[in-house]
Amino acid sequence: MDDKREAGLELDPKFDAAGLITAVVTDAGSGAVLMVAHMDAEALAATYATGEAHFWSRSRQRLWKKGESSGNVLKVIEMRIDCDQDAVWVIAEPAGPACHTGEASCFYRRIAGDRLERL
Amino acid sequence: MDDKREAGLELDPKFDAAGLITAVVTDAGSGAVLMVAHMDAEALAATYATGEAHFWSRSRQRLWKKGESSGNVLKVIEMRIDCDQDAVWVIAEPAGPACHTGEASCFYRRIAGDRLERL
Repeated sequence: MDDKREAGLELDPKFDAAGLITAVVTDAGSGAVLMVAHMDAEALAATYATGEAHFWSRSRQRLWKKGESSGNVLKVIEMRIDCDQDAVWVIAEPAGPACHTGEASCFYRRIAGDRLERL
Repeated sequence: MDDKREAGLELDPKFDAAGLITAVVTDAGSGAVLMVAHMDAEALAATYATGEAHFWSRSRQRLWKKGESSGNVLKVIEMRIDCDQDAVWVIAEPAGPACHTGEASCFYRRIAGDRLERL
């Protein structure tokens, strides 16, 4: 166990080989998980500094402010990091649907065997 | 947009190059994010079939039932999948602390600039 990283009080994100950590965003009001995405060091810093969630877009290979085109920004209420510092939990107030499909959350389907059910 | 995967009702997980998808576990009671880990196809199937959360341990390179040694299993209430099917949200009832540090959640520290604050 990496004691300093796991029990210390210094921010020391453990980025993967691609320079990313996982970011989970939940709705501060409902508690629902809104989306899961990735942050590089710049996105993590921008999220903290601006109070709006930023990610690294793996498909576009660039910094991406959530809502930059849709307007559906995620206002950051609090950021937490997990024990081994390779995942961030962003508690946020969404300005609109978090999912590009128009759903409030990207997790709008329940697993039912080999099938999915809309919530 | 991959319409079938993103809007369809067929379970079709998009595993990464290592055969994994991200799994986020929240506490069915408090709504807190308990942990973030990874599932391969076998872990995903075992989680659904047994009603207890299983993951792929990247450090041990094997299937891992959460709580197999500690007893702190995660009883699955519901499983959801996100729009592009590369992340799963497991809503669970934890039998005990979810974190190996003994904390209820792995996310027990808040980010405050370059520092962390215990909750």
